[in-house]
Amino acid sequence: MNKAATPDVVVVGSVAFDSVQTPKARHEKLLGGSASYTSVAAALFARTGIVGVVGEDFPPEYVEIFERAGVDLQGLQREPGKTFHWSGLYEDNMNNRRTNCTDLNVFADFNPVIPEAYRTSPYLCLENIAPALQARVLDQMEKPRFTVLDTMDLWINTTREELMNVIARVDLLTVNEHEARHLTGKGSLLKAAKKILDMGPKYALIKKGEHGAFLMSQDDILIVPAWPLLEVVDPTGAGDTFAGGLLGTLAELGDVTRENLHKALVNATVTAAFTCEAFSVDRLRQITRAELDERAAAFRRMLP
Amino acid sequence: MNKAATPDVVVVGSVAFDSVQTPKARHEKLLGGSASYTSVAAALFARTGIVGVVGEDFPPEYVEIFERAGVDLQGLQREPGKTFHWSGLYEDNMNNRRTNCTDLNVFADFNPVIPEAYRTSPYLCLENIAPALQARVLDQMEKPRFTVLDTMDLWINTTREELMNVIARVDLLTVNEHEARHLTGKGSLLKAAKKILDMGPKYALIKKGEHGAFLMSQDDILIVPAWPLLEVVDPTGAGDTFAGGLLGTLAELGDVTRENLHKALVNATVTAAFTCEAFSVDRLRQITRAELDERAAAFRRMLP
Repeated sequence: MNKAATPDVVVVGSVAFDSVQTPKARHEKLLGGSASYTSVAAALFARTGIVGVVGEDFPPEYVEIFERAGVDLQGLQREPGKTFHWSGLYEDNMNNRRTNCTDLNVFADFNPVIPEAYRTSPYLCLENIAPALQARVLDQMEKPRFTVLDTMDLWINTTREELMNVIARVDLLTVNEHEARHLTGKGSLLKAAKKILDMGPKYALIKKGEHGAFLMSQDDILIVPAWPLLEVVDPTGAGDTFAGGLLGTLAELGDVTRENLHKALVNATVTAAFTCEAFSVDRLRQITRAELDERAAAFRRMLP
Repeated sequence: MNKAATPDVVVVGSVAFDSVQTPKARHEKLLGGSASYTSVAAALFARTGIVGVVGEDFPPEYVEIFERAGVDLQGLQREPGKTFHWSGLYEDNMNNRRTNCTDLNVFADFNPVIPEAYRTSPYLCLENIAPALQARVLDQMEKPRFTVLDTMDLWINTTREELMNVIARVDLLTVNEHEARHLTGKGSLLKAAKKILDMGPKYALIKKGEHGAFLMSQDDILIVPAWPLLEVVDPTGAGDTFAGGLLGTLAELGDVTRENLHKALVNATVTAAFTCEAFSVDRLRQITRAELDERAAAFRRMLP
């Protein structure tokens, strides 16, 4: 992408080293972080820029992965110190994840600075970072057409007020089942989604992992099951990939209509499934658009 | 239905009194039993006959429920003694069910006798009864076009060989997640479904409750999420209703094609949702075909 060009999609979040252990394999310091998955996924569909921070130890091979995927790196800061390192373990059924360590390193002082060329981008993804930082990003943007916000338990527990303020400023809040219940105090996911809409966003996206997802608005609900995966190699980043596939597709189609949201949910689903087929972004970064479209068509044929 | 007429669908299984307690209500001796739900659901779509047994205490009001629903009762035996009585309790999230008592009564000696007029019926649903009895039913039928088989943990544990023999003789095995894993020893539901196909049936239907269902054949998979229910009043019989909606729709459409299976899965889903909206068959027996079609159309609009 041309340096001066404004991306269609801006992704703000973590870029990390992930050390992941599954029942079958263990890998050290893979390319990870929410913004990595989301940006590589979104770049399949639209011009995408990433805003994040890495340390001096971030290797050229990982920079190259972004470049080959077509992700613009103007917003990727390099700071003195080490890159954020997350280490985790999946237990037998791949649904239980245990975190071994979270070394924030340079990510602890992350101050997202949005490059000039990014400020008029129409589609914005605010990954799971401190709500105060998410708000600071929103302050730097010139009224994006559609903003997606992610969050996590930590912010629900520790900075609820800031989180509620930023939730009120976005178009779509994306959370998993557990976070939806935790945030709203509702056991029923449908009721949780309704309560999220009361907090301000036009859409609540509830991700249910292997059971798919649903997108609720005030008077509508769109449902998408998961792609049937015979083997999950590593589910890390599947939810972030989902957000990237969704936002990238909306940016490509150029408008947030009901029909386009359906298409975006299908692309998000199959893109997330590719992520689960390998560690890190190893499968995601190799798929062609033709492969993706073929799987999306196959998926639609599985549905009524 | 004319006494001499052959029904499109024959349902063989239990007719019972259900005493059900949920967090919000408790009801005694409701009309229950797998064949009750399945036959009332199937009768929405096609001429349906029931084969089961009740005791002398089975009240005329419950007979009338079947009659009003258009279920033929030639195959409903009345024997000296009491009707099968099941009593259970749903805990807070409505997903955990505890059985308090199972008084088989006349059902303990159930010997399904298929009325002459039923023997050439093209669609057969063998509900969860002893595999030896299911086999005896198959022996009495003249090559039904499509047979659905249900089962439960008890038979998987105690009469596995007979169960495997009868599974090999049917077109579709329907089980819930837990039963699928228990029967096949596979943790992955997709692998469990594949293993069921190896046992003989052309189709494996895995019911996932609030997460929908999928239907697998050797080279294909059809997926359907659940209808989004804001409030589950009583989920008893939802799976049996699903089977009835499925088989009834196939019988109505007259052929088991991929397109018809998709339609059948949609009707099965919305029919099962109606069952969850009230105790017993109280909602199911009151819906009109127009209501059902309207909800099916609304459901399709929620899907990509």
